[in-house]
Amino acid sequence: QRFEDVFPCIRSELIDHITAQGMPKEAIQWYTNNLNYNVPGGKLNRGISVVDSFQVLKGTTLTEDEYQKAAILGWCVELLQAFFLVSDDVMDSSITRRGQPCWYKNPEVGLIAINDAFMLESAIYHLIKSRFRQESYYVDLLELFHETTYQTEMGQLIDLITAPEDHVDLSKFNLTKHRLIVVYKTAFYSFYLPVALSMYMAGIPDSYPSPVSPNETVKPFDVALSILLQIGEYFQIQDDFLDYHVPPELLGKVGTDILDNKCSWVINTALAVRGTLSATRKTEIRAILDENYGRKDGEKEARVKAVLKELDIAEIYNEYEEGVYAKLKGEIEKIPEGPGLGLRRDVFTKFLGKIYKRQK
Amino acid sequence: QRFEDVFPCIRSELIDHITAQGMPKEAIQWYTNNLNYNVPGGKLNRGISVVDSFQVLKGTTLTEDEYQKAAILGWCVELLQAFFLVSDDVMDSSITRRGQPCWYKNPEVGLIAINDAFMLESAIYHLIKSRFRQESYYVDLLELFHETTYQTEMGQLIDLITAPEDHVDLSKFNLTKHRLIVVYKTAFYSFYLPVALSMYMAGIPDSYPSPVSPNETVKPFDVALSILLQIGEYFQIQDDFLDYHVPPELLGKVGTDILDNKCSWVINTALAVRGTLSATRKTEIRAILDENYGRKDGEKEARVKAVLKELDIAEIYNEYEEGVYAKLKGEIEKIPEGPGLGLRRDVFTKFLGKIYKRQK
Ligand SMILES: [Mg+2]
Ligand SMILES: [Mg+2]
Ligand SMILES: [Mg+2]
Ligand SMILES: [Mg+2]
Ligand SMILES: [Mg+2]
Ligand SMILES: [Mg+2]
Repeated sequence: QRFEDVFPCIRSELIDHITAQGMPKEAIQWYTNNLNYNVPGGKLNRGISVVDSFQVLKGTTLTEDEYQKAAILGWCVELLQAFFLVSDDVMDSSITRRGQPCWYKNPEVGLIAINDAFMLESAIYHLIKSRFRQESYYVDLLELFHETTYQTEMGQLIDLITAPEDHVDLSKFNLTKHRLIVVYKTAFYSFYLPVALSMYMAGIPDSYPSPVSPNETVKPFDVALSILLQIGEYFQIQDDFLDYHVPPELLGKVGTDILDNKCSWVINTALAVRGTLSATRKTEIRAILDENYGRKDGEKEARVKAVLKELDIAEIYNEYEEGVYAKLKGEIEKIPEGPGLGLRRDVFTKFLGKIYKRQK
Repeated sequence: QRFEDVFPCIRSELIDHITAQGMPKEAIQWYTNNLNYNVPGGKLNRGISVVDSFQVLKGTTLTEDEYQKAAILGWCVELLQAFFLVSDDVMDSSITRRGQPCWYKNPEVGLIAINDAFMLESAIYHLIKSRFRQESYYVDLLELFHETTYQTEMGQLIDLITAPEDHVDLSKFNLTKHRLIVVYKTAFYSFYLPVALSMYMAGIPDSYPSPVSPNETVKPFDVALSILLQIGEYFQIQDDFLDYHVPPELLGKVGTDILDNKCSWVINTALAVRGTLSATRKTEIRAILDENYGRKDGEKEARVKAVLKELDIAEIYNEYEEGVYAKLKGEIEKIPEGPGLGLRRDVFTKFLGKIYKRQK
């Protein structure tokens, strides 16, 4: 709630700025609607995690000014996500988002949504300049947003050319491609970006001597990147699995990945584990998947689900989840902690705790 | 030609970078095609003007390194333009661009063009980081690109909500709105941006004492902005006028602003000069324009052209051109020049010379 209360300040600052530039009132009203419709209204996990991570890194209660600044960076992550979602919905011809029609589906909006997405991205740099220009880490923030944006766009590109909704070609799918799409399209901006922002704000240096064995050097941004990309991959694999496995009344939405030809962990795992079956059954299953995956047809979806059940994808998922959880716990425990300013294990255990055994 | 020869270096650098990130070969090929199709192939005026302005400001022959760096900034302006044009064509449902189908019109591309446009924008910041990170003016370059991008998006927004192709409403048009659209959508990025980039590269300070009257302070970026926005407005007014007035065989393309409901200087001037006519004729002319402007119909276009002829738009244009040319010459001549590093009149006279009495 405190985080949400910062949004009106941000909106005012953006609207005051375009008003001062002399924009006509219709354009000011339009941009206000764009911001209100597309920026709040999500779960705000990414934005809030900037504040939470900063809190862990600082260790003591935040001043009002610190809270504001961390929250503004959090809202910048939400603006970046809004930029991606508004344009992704246009590219995917999606119908609804967050329980309302996609922005471009509003009759007066249409393809103007593309320029509206751009203006959500530009807002990030306006806010960072106005609030962080004097900080020693100002350039780090700019470069981090640039790089993360580019990586997310690369992930989108692979996804768009691998899994177009209207052309099923399972020969393009494999678990390596899945991992690449997930890491680039989601993990960098959803997991690494918020934490790295909080690390810059906390003044964590690029490297420092390990507080437990001073001959070793800690590279905190590399450590955070490695752990958070794995957490991001885990999160998305889980998201893919829940989409297939959890009934709609529990999931809170209807899973449509099979219908939509998504390059999901579930189908990629199914394609991979066929290796353990008899040659005949292998061929049969591949034919069933080729004919029925990614078709907008409930019966075909049911045939795919029957195969996924036969292959015991749920069991494979449970093994994966236990394995990745144990591995991540181990890596987190190896982070050296001391009394001074440095990376903290709690930044990562908080993420992991929220994700492990999640059901929706 | 020398400028064009820098493009392959830039493309290699971008392709090497995404290759090093581990992108699959289909994605690398796709991005290569995106760059080749959308970045070169225009007139390159904007890019080349970075090099030309830098040459004027430096005064002596450029070293190879200086040429390269100015050319890279020039190609960054071309990348920014490519980002705008690729997405503008999607938003406008355009058919052709630079004598070939618009990128999104290629059957395998479609709405993936939106993400492709994003990746052209992101390329700018990758290149600037790789080539200018060590320079004292690095942050100035980043902020200038951010601000100019945002301004151009604001111009697009006003244009999109003022003059949608499928809904004619001349009551939304007026010369003030036209000026705002032109300045924001075109002048900032086409005229101010290239010159301001060259000024940062040349090391021109934010302010300096006038070399002719040392009690006065020169604010060179403010001077350049004021002159270049006026030149940009003049350029676009001329573009609008030529679209209406020059026969296709001379213009090199068929003017379609009347058919396309463009918020052009020509229609705005026609709406404004009705003021000098009799009340009856005023009403008649407004009715003719309301019924015939912005309709995809050659006969309706002819009726609009007849009214424009009756109102003698050509004569009004000639008066405007002489007036703005004299005013700009006067402002340029007032720029104080001395032997040291500072703003040079020639930066602006070159632009003005290329535009004045242009016929295509
Ligand atoms: Mg989507
Ligand atoms: Mg998508
Ligand atoms: Mg999902
Ligand atoms: Mg257009
Ligand atoms: Mg347009
Ligand atoms: Mg034109």
